[in-house]
Amino acid sequence: MKTVYIVRREHFNAAHKLWREDWSAEKNEEVFGKCSNKNWHGHNFNLFVTVKGVPSEETGFIIDLKELSRIIKRDVVETLDHKNLNLDVPYLAGLLPSTENLIIKIWEILETPIAEAGGSLAKLRLEETENNFVEYFGGAEPF
Amino acid sequence: MKTVYIVRREHFNAAHKLWREDWSAEKNEEVFGKCSNKNWHGHNFNLFVTVKGVPSEETGFIIDLKELSRIIKRDVVETLDHKNLNLDVPYLAGLLPSTENLIIKIWEILETPIAEAGGSLAKLRLEETENNFVEYFGGAEPF
Amino acid sequence: MKTVYIVRREHFNAAHKLWREDWSAEKNEEVFGKCSNKNWHGHNFNLFVTVKGVPSEETGFIIDLKELSRIIKRDVVETLDHKNLNLDVPYLAGLLPSTENLIIKIWEILETPIAEAGGSLAKLRLEETENNFVEYFGGAEPF
Amino acid sequence: MKTVYIVRREHFNAAHKLWREDWSAEKNEEVFGKCSNKNWHGHNFNLFVTVKGVPSEETGFIIDLKELSRIIKRDVVETLDHKNLNLDVPYLAGLLPSTENLIIKIWEILETPIAEAGGSLAKLRLEETENNFVEYFGGAEPF
Amino acid sequence: MKTVYIVRREHFNAAHKLWREDWSAEKNEEVFGKCSNKNWHGHNFNLFVTVKGVPSEETGFIIDLKELSRIIKRDVVETLDHKNLNLDVPYLAGLLPSTENLIIKIWEILETPIAEAGGSLAKLRLEETENNFVEYFGGAEPF
Amino acid sequence: MKTVYIVRREHFNAAHKLWREDWSAEKNEEVFGKCSNKNWHGHNFNLFVTVKGVPSEETGFIIDLKELSRIIKRDVVETLDHKNLNLDVPYLAGLLPSTENLIIKIWEILETPIAEAGGSLAKLRLEETENNFVEYFGGAEPF
Repeated sequence: MKTVYIVRREHFNAAHKLWREDWSAEKNEEVFGKCSNKNWHGHNFNLFVTVKGVPSEETGFIIDLKELSRIIKRDVVETLDHKNLNLDVPYLAGLLPSTENLIIKIWEILETPIAEAGGSLAKLRLEETENNFVEYFGGAEPF
Repeated sequence: MKTVYIVRREHFNAAHKLWREDWSAEKNEEVFGKCSNKNWHGHNFNLFVTVKGVPSEETGFIIDLKELSRIIKRDVVETLDHKNLNLDVPYLAGLLPSTENLIIKIWEILETPIAEAGGSLAKLRLEETENNFVEYFGGAEPF
Repeated sequence: MKTVYIVRREHFNAAHKLWREDWSAEKNEEVFGKCSNKNWHGHNFNLFVTVKGVPSEETGFIIDLKELSRIIKRDVVETLDHKNLNLDVPYLAGLLPSTENLIIKIWEILETPIAEAGGSLAKLRLEETENNFVEYFGGAEPF
Repeated sequence: MKTVYIVRREHFNAAHKLWREDWSAEKNEEVFGKCSNKNWHGHNFNLFVTVKGVPSEETGFIIDLKELSRIIKRDVVETLDHKNLNLDVPYLAGLLPSTENLIIKIWEILETPIAEAGGSLAKLRLEETENNFVEYFGGAEPF
Repeated sequence: MKTVYIVRREHFNAAHKLWREDWSAEKNEEVFGKCSNKNWHGHNFNLFVTVKGVPSEETGFIIDLKELSRIIKRDVVETLDHKNLNLDVPYLAGLLPSTENLIIKIWEILETPIAEAGGSLAKLRLEETENNFVEYFGGAEPF
Repeated sequence: MKTVYIVRREHFNAAHKLWREDWSAEKNEEVFGKCSNKNWHGHNFNLFVTVKGVPSEETGFIIDLKELSRIIKRDVVETLDHKNLNLDVPYLAGLLPSTENLIIKIWEILETPIAEAGGSLAKLRLEETENNFVEYFGGAEPF
């Protein structure tokens, strides 16, 4: 089986803070450091979405990249770009917006529409800075 | 005169919004678009500081890069990193935190301490995203 | 005068070849090397457009970056992206599509609409590969 | 077993189009979008070749990177650089030159000479733009 | 199990040469090429450290990135940065400092302190140049 | 005059140290910090060479980039790549190999052969790391 993995990058800019209301300011500062600043900070996020499949004999495609881009923009970028991850995003309500938690949510959002478009979501990579990023494989074995 | 230009990159992550209190929400949205989101958004900023001078015969240096880095971190990065540019930074109070306005303020902050360290500030470059950035030469002729 | 320089990056992918009809294949090969391949080759081009001005006290902007992006996309990207620079672009007809010639043409195209949007085109940078690129200042003194 | 994976990057610039002769122009445009432009477009391709193995006690090498680079240049870069992927490359004849199909062909070309040089091809990554790329593991389990 | 992989980049600059004392200069030159230059050469190394785990419900973290960075700096960067890999590093004594051998050693150094900090080292990536790099998974199955 | 500036990137890897024989080890350490490590350290250097001129009507070129690349490789890269800047390079003998001093020397080396090839050297940029680099305009006004 000639399974190929295709990757599409999209990006968004957002504000957030790491802060627990049930902790004191001191405890938040101790655990989350600068990320606990009460007035927020922000990042340019890069999101890499990997879809796997066997290229179609008819088109040479695993998935139409234009359609993949459209799904990511509609379901992820539009909901996160120029937003506050703690305040503005219904599906993140009540969640600490660490990159770890964020990437799991993005997987849950993208898995079904990508499947409906004929693809199989295989991996996500979410870069918060050039030094810090996370990868997620939906709980499956990584690659 | 063998004038050389040396550049040091530093970076910081911050939240901001473009918003005028004396405008309606509609007017803010019309002029500033997504950047007017009331709950903020944010960026990873890259700051490039250029100092010019003739290399010392004794050290081969225009300026000690360790000292230049120390100045930028102390006077700029410490005051902006993981901050809200609208709320947390005394020297930006009352200013629309566009990258244009921000780079002018950073010049005003860095010019004197760099001069005191024996250097001459020649250029700043402030990258907000990989697609948008500004450069400033202190009002002097650019290069 | 607090003149700031703001830069917007856009990109396009195009095919071209360097070939003179009035030369033999051998002469074309000798002068243009691999770039003379008769069946074309191509590149991912990055275009950086620099506009200068004094930030508005009202908006903090030199020029609205959304508007600048719209102009570049409408007048340059739409006419060059996924095109053949030798065959598909009326304003390049009869011109050897070297990056040098291309950047001069892009300047001629962008200068007026940027001025009409209240900006002053100051510099272009056109990257053909990570190793080869050109800069142009409209014949004015460079910076 | 201390298996290490070593990666070598090479690059090439090429023209192509996505176009089926047995389809109408409208159908080609509908499925392939801008990539169906009849006069071609092009890209700067980055190819990353991963070879796995246990470092030699004698040399500290899995494979001599100079030799790996020589193989990739001889068998892939020389055949694709400054070429038209639809017209100029015998081993791509009759194939839709999508990145998916291209990466499978490159695997078939490199697997044997790398094995003859004592290495084991483990992964390919082919970048078409900074936003679009593919990875291939030869049909084996990915990593 | 919602296992996420988090990556931290650190970097160091070092000198080295590939040279065996028990070989002639000619043999060293033949096998190691330019890397055998007797007076050394050097690189900017980028090290990417991947730790896997399930995000904590309390903090949203797999591992505190500040702590991960502190471990990498203390145990790797401090011992390698601005050093000679052949002469200055006790744990590399007697080893050919190829990137392959170096990445295995870095794994041995980081595995225990990362485990003690509650993480599980999953992957290393060591970039010697933008064209040459290695990855290591501790002998486990790669991803 | 339609003067265009064309840039070619080349790179080399080298070892060096900042050290004055007429100073004590303590003084060297105090002034040059980690860069004074007696057993050397090293970098991947990126060199950007800018040549200015008016595009030829015949070829569309300011200068043949293949010829420019050949000159830089012959006169700079071959003399610095995989070398020790303190020990192996006759034209650097007796000079503190700071990037400031190095870029001035590279200018002196390239100016004449580029002129003989019909070009005019306008600017050099030498990157030592992604955070530290220098630019030089031959003593002329910068841009």
